[in-house]
Amino acid sequence: METSKLITWRAKFDQELFEYVVPFWEKHSPDWQYGGYFNALSRDGSKYDTSKYVWLQARQVWMFSTLWLKHEKRESWAKIAGLGAQFLKDHAVRDDQRAYFSLSQEGEPTWMQRKIFSECFIVMAFAQYSRVSGESKWMEDAKILFDSVMEWAEDLQKIGRPHYSGSKIAHSLAVPMILLNVIEELAGDSWKEYSEQIDTLLQRMLLHVKSDRKQVLENVGKDGVYIDSIEGRVLNPGHSIEAGWFLQHWAQRLKRDDLSEIAFNMVRWSMDYGWDDEHQGLFYFLDAEGFNPTQLEWDMKLWWPHCEAMYATLLNYKLTGDKKDLASFEKVANYTFSHFPDHEHGEWYGYLNRRGEITHSFKGGPYKGCFHVPRALWLCRSVLDEMI
Amino acid sequence: METSKLITWRAKFDQELFEYVVPFWEKHSPDWQYGGYFNALSRDGSKYDTSKYVWLQARQVWMFSTLWLKHEKRESWAKIAGLGAQFLKDHAVRDDQRAYFSLSQEGEPTWMQRKIFSECFIVMAFAQYSRVSGESKWMEDAKILFDSVMEWAEDLQKIGRPHYSGSKIAHSLAVPMILLNVIEELAGDSWKEYSEQIDTLLQRMLLHVKSDRKQVLENVGKDGVYIDSIEGRVLNPGHSIEAGWFLQHWAQRLKRDDLSEIAFNMVRWSMDYGWDDEHQGLFYFLDAEGFNPTQLEWDMKLWWPHCEAMYATLLNYKLTGDKKDLASFEKVANYTFSHFPDHEHGEWYGYLNRRGEITHSFKGGPYKGCFHVPRALWLCRSVLDEMI
Repeated sequence: METSKLITWRAKFDQELFEYVVPFWEKHSPDWQYGGYFNALSRDGSKYDTSKYVWLQARQVWMFSTLWLKHEKRESWAKIAGLGAQFLKDHAVRDDQRAYFSLSQEGEPTWMQRKIFSECFIVMAFAQYSRVSGESKWMEDAKILFDSVMEWAEDLQKIGRPHYSGSKIAHSLAVPMILLNVIEELAGDSWKEYSEQIDTLLQRMLLHVKSDRKQVLENVGKDGVYIDSIEGRVLNPGHSIEAGWFLQHWAQRLKRDDLSEIAFNMVRWSMDYGWDDEHQGLFYFLDAEGFNPTQLEWDMKLWWPHCEAMYATLLNYKLTGDKKDLASFEKVANYTFSHFPDHEHGEWYGYLNRRGEITHSFKGGPYKGCFHVPRALWLCRSVLDEMI
Repeated sequence: METSKLITWRAKFDQELFEYVVPFWEKHSPDWQYGGYFNALSRDGSKYDTSKYVWLQARQVWMFSTLWLKHEKRESWAKIAGLGAQFLKDHAVRDDQRAYFSLSQEGEPTWMQRKIFSECFIVMAFAQYSRVSGESKWMEDAKILFDSVMEWAEDLQKIGRPHYSGSKIAHSLAVPMILLNVIEELAGDSWKEYSEQIDTLLQRMLLHVKSDRKQVLENVGKDGVYIDSIEGRVLNPGHSIEAGWFLQHWAQRLKRDDLSEIAFNMVRWSMDYGWDDEHQGLFYFLDAEGFNPTQLEWDMKLWWPHCEAMYATLLNYKLTGDKKDLASFEKVANYTFSHFPDHEHGEWYGYLNRRGEITHSFKGGPYKGCFHVPRALWLCRSVLDEMI
């Protein structure tokens, strides 16, 4: 890509991030009364519910901390990050280190999942906020929580998720991929302390990558065996693209060309089978054998797979210089910028139907917060910076 | 409606049920090797998975038993009903009376919900099959299971569904409505034995019916109080229409005009706010205050709300003679017959997008089995019979 084009793209990401996205969350999400952030925000930022979803609370702490650490030391950003971190510490994490999934506005628990993701995102939040606040207690809390998470990841029955004798699915891609990202954020430059765990998690992630099929399977059996069932055939292109760039970060850090090659492919295959040639955009779910997916929302176009795909394809291009990777980036970025942003009220729409029409007008909901959009914009901007 | 029109509709329901729907399940679903039924059936009836979903297994036992009892004593129907009943008895119900949500082809458990619906549908299956087989042990099993279900319905924490201090939702419409249907099927003519329970459940159902709002709320707080939150504002038109005719059946049996009037309204209101004036058909979810629903599938058109609506509006019309109820029936029946049936391969499609285009081609899946389509066709046919 010519430098002029790189500069144009960089300006686009910059403008989107700092004019339309970050200000939306700064203005509408902080709950200065009870702490934490409002998550249910309509198109114009007005609230339609006061519940606080822990995944999104934690991710927003991480996001504002990251902007403060890497972009600019704005006091308001540190303050917003702290507002969420303290709320999580006060209300989300129980004494046994389990964390709730959702809380009331005041911080009373409303739901807990038999999964480890609330805890994972809190580790990332506390670790990053520790660097903002300079208070080591946040990092200590992050590490204690991380140890529990790693123990549970080995056996989810410890947190009440039963395993039944008839189920052939043994591994879910989400677990190793999120944990690899958690370690990246928790450890920072001291990642070598976690070498053994990283190695194990990389092995577990690779169980899902099937070169013969050119597919990344969400759920596999023992030792990564392919299970020919609804569950075993699930493809989630956005998820495997995200896993691809998580892996690429580790490949670069570990200087492992073999892993780097696999990461390139995870993104390329997913962009290939995940793309809707008829209406454009990435499908949400597909079936590895081409059966009709059973998820009702399979053909929808969600904001986050497109966010992940912009960064993953751009990173591929930076590392390979391959025109095909560039074409992928331009394809997904053009679709994304022409469908998701809302320059009237800020932030992006989250949910489109197969045709690309908006089906959900809100900017924040139970699973959409201040995370995928600003993270992807920030990451793309950073890669473009390096390339320029 | 003139008699000639009634006869035409009756012929339509009859043909659909006995030429296209029942034969599909007779041919493709029985697993003569391991027992029970295959649930994951593609458009043409071929299998795309061998999992057995207990809701659907039980409902199919009920359906074939009902056809045998009420339509014709075909030996093949009794045999199919027995194939599922025995499979459920052997594999689905644990010693503590809890029932699994899904099983492998061979009957090994794969998942259990912290809900009571698997058990509810098994009660209906065993009770009805008892009448087919003439074996009282099925009815005894049904009654033992029902007693446990009623106990759990009082306090779902007994089956491991925690209640958290911040949650304001105290009641879900699904529980009283399904239990009222279960008692209708379990008790048959001896329903007076259950008078006290029926009365309690009717009171609980009415907590969800809001005359001032002309809405039926899925989730309400203590004493039926309206909770202004995402969860408290959920409307599910198909569900409240189904609850409407469940209530109407009890109103007729109890000769309670007050309940009958409420039941008319539940159906009318839901048809009113649930109907998509732009693209026709019933929405899947709505928000009581008009906010954008958060369910990703909110604007889809599913087969079962339309099945329920055909019968509920027709029953309203039979009881009231009101032309508005007839118009409602014709509106939903015309939409249904022009969108869901598949005369090439039999059974109906289950899932359409807002525009009415098929998004899922399969006939059977984790939540779609041999139930809503044949039950509605049978019920409509029976009402038309009475009217003719």
